[in-house]
Amino acid sequence: METQERNRTAKGEASRQRLLAAATAQFARKGYHHTKVSDIVKAAGLTQAAFYLYFPSKEAIFTELVDSFRMKLATLAQSAGKVASLAPGEAARQIKENLRDVFAFLQSEPELTRIAWFESPDAKEMKEKVIALLSAHILNNQQAGHIRKELVPEVAACCIVGMIDQLTERWIVTGEKQPEQLTEEMSELLLYGVLAPYQSR
Amino acid sequence: METQERNRTAKGEASRQRLLAAATAQFARKGYHHTKVSDIVKAAGLTQAAFYLYFPSKEAIFTELVDSFRMKLATLAQSAGKVASLAPGEAARQIKENLRDVFAFLQSEPELTRIAWFESPDAKEMKEKVIALLSAHILNNQQAGHIRKELVPEVAACCIVGMIDQLTERWIVTGEKQPEQLTEEMSELLLYGVLAPYQSR
Repeated sequence: METQERNRTAKGEASRQRLLAAATAQFARKGYHHTKVSDIVKAAGLTQAAFYLYFPSKEAIFTELVDSFRMKLATLAQSAGKVASLAPGEAARQIKENLRDVFAFLQSEPELTRIAWFESPDAKEMKEKVIALLSAHILNNQQAGHIRKELVPEVAACCIVGMIDQLTERWIVTGEKQPEQLTEEMSELLLYGVLAPYQSR
Repeated sequence: METQERNRTAKGEASRQRLLAAATAQFARKGYHHTKVSDIVKAAGLTQAAFYLYFPSKEAIFTELVDSFRMKLATLAQSAGKVASLAPGEAARQIKENLRDVFAFLQSEPELTRIAWFESPDAKEMKEKVIALLSAHILNNQQAGHIRKELVPEVAACCIVGMIDQLTERWIVTGEKQPEQLTEEMSELLLYGVLAPYQSR
């Protein structure tokens, strides 16, 4: 009861946010196993007692961070549904736009991306969901004639998630490339393949 | 001195191999942190004392497994160098052949793949090396006119490793798809891209 009241005050909310921000930085730097609650409270400039006012355990604060990522990802996935209703000739532009949104999202909070997309045990299940969603989009767009019918939707979706994964680890969470540039570079392979045009099929 | 002699005997070598096989299965199932030396010796039907005759620690046996994977991967990478000297019109066939070899290798010992390619802290460095090697091949084949010049070699290499990674986790280590089939399915995207041919560029 006391905890709940404290949570509702503005000061309480500010402390909570400071703990979440400190936990993000600590988990991203040291990994989940090597981060202690004492590291988090020290980085947040709060006491151990304050921590337990807001979170029952290290696991609980980690779960909250992963859940916040998951929710943002779900919002993004919903807005990417736009592709389903493409006008002919617009597929390339629309795919690039969605891809840039994904990279921008993954770069907006790179530490959270590191935790939730690469380190969390839930990452695999999140990727499975993204693959399932992407598969459905690919199938839709094959039927609409925008995407090559020779592709197996689930395999293509899996390839796309793999590309985004590897590029994000190397250039997005490190901040070494901007979403716009990486989108253009990945799209060259994704849209048109690697083979030079003269090659016989 | 005694250890060395024991290592050289046929019986000693058989015990060593049994420990390596048991360790592979245990690490793949439980992960490195949750595997104990006692689990490994129990699975191998040997004693704790026998284990320490061959390996100084759990870390040492894990490292030996990862190193054996790394060596096989290096051999494979060398033989893939063939692509560099392609005949015109043969690029698609040769790329598929190399891809099938990679999937066959990753499926030949799926538990070892799980440990060395997905779980080991050295995996990132191994992937970096594969990306560097692939980049060089892509550049060569762009100069030879086999691969599209619009691709940034390092980005394309990173995309290819990402695709292999994700497909391997989902279909290769689980044994759900055979290398031949998955090669055909991935090649549709890799060689020709996702965009239906009528789409304007």
